[in-house]
Amino acid sequence: MADRMSIIVFSGTVDKLMAASILATGGAAMGMEVEVFLTFWGLDAFRKDGYKTNTVKVYACSMTMELFDKKLEDLEPIVDDVTGVATFVERAKEGKITLFI
Amino acid sequence: MADRMSIIVFSGTVDKLMAASILATGGAAMGMEVEVFLTFWGLDAFRKDGYKTNTVKVYACSMTMELFDKKLEDLEPIVDDVTGVATFVERAKEGKITLFI
Amino acid sequence: MADRMSIIVFSGTVDKLMAASILATGGAAMGMEVEVFLTFWGLDAFRKDGYKTNTVKVYACSMTMELFDKKLEDLEPIVDDVTGVATFVERAKEGKITLFI
Repeated sequence: MADRMSIIVFSGTVDKLMAASILATGGAAMGMEVEVFLTFWGLDAFRKDGYKTNTVKVYACSMTMELFDKKLEDLEPIVDDVTGVATFVERAKEGKITLFI
Repeated sequence: MADRMSIIVFSGTVDKLMAASILATGGAAMGMEVEVFLTFWGLDAFRKDGYKTNTVKVYACSMTMELFDKKLEDLEPIVDDVTGVATFVERAKEGKITLFI
Repeated sequence: MADRMSIIVFSGTVDKLMAASILATGGAAMGMEVEVFLTFWGLDAFRKDGYKTNTVKVYACSMTMELFDKKLEDLEPIVDDVTGVATFVERAKEGKITLFI
């Protein structure tokens, strides 16, 4: 089992983005690998902030990218990569905490 | 530990039902057992959709069934069974991912 | 791994507080350690209810306490202690289920 926290950021409201950011930062501060998966309103609203420490990886949901007609260039340097839900789940299930925000 | 994803579907809005469905399908595609527990607005709004593959089990929350005065016949073939929260939790804790949507 | 369920109560609406309470009670009924972390609207709205069995511990988020200018005396006997997100995460990652509500 990996010392990993996986956060699905679905919501795009400021309060929930703040909560996600605080949890991601808290996990990273405890030495965990933190992976954030931006989807739906979360991808639309996401802006560069406290997430981008070395230990927090940010992925954009490929399905949402198509839906919103966005490209990786539109999101860099916020987003490390574009990935599908199955790949995210595959990594999340090896970890210790998975949250849907 | 079981290779299981447990999803509590509490919300009944279209966007969250879609997210739950995509995550359930993604988990099943990776070979995980997926269990969905419909409760509150999730039970009220739930309609037959992509969930019902062989590897996704759908349970209705018994407390919510009473609250909404619904019977299993009203929900079949969407729902496999009616169960209590304790039973759902008992299975979820053996799994790898549990989400509240 | 501890037989623990950790619930982050972020939302303050009655339906979500009820869901959190039912899940906490269900987990405790199955013999799990249950820890609730009240944050944001969840801390603001939280009232003494079914949570306070012996096996459910309730923590208030220290950052939210400062934000809302609340003191532990304002919340007792609802809240067992005030804690930071990192401490909560540290305990959650040793457990079996972590939920964000």
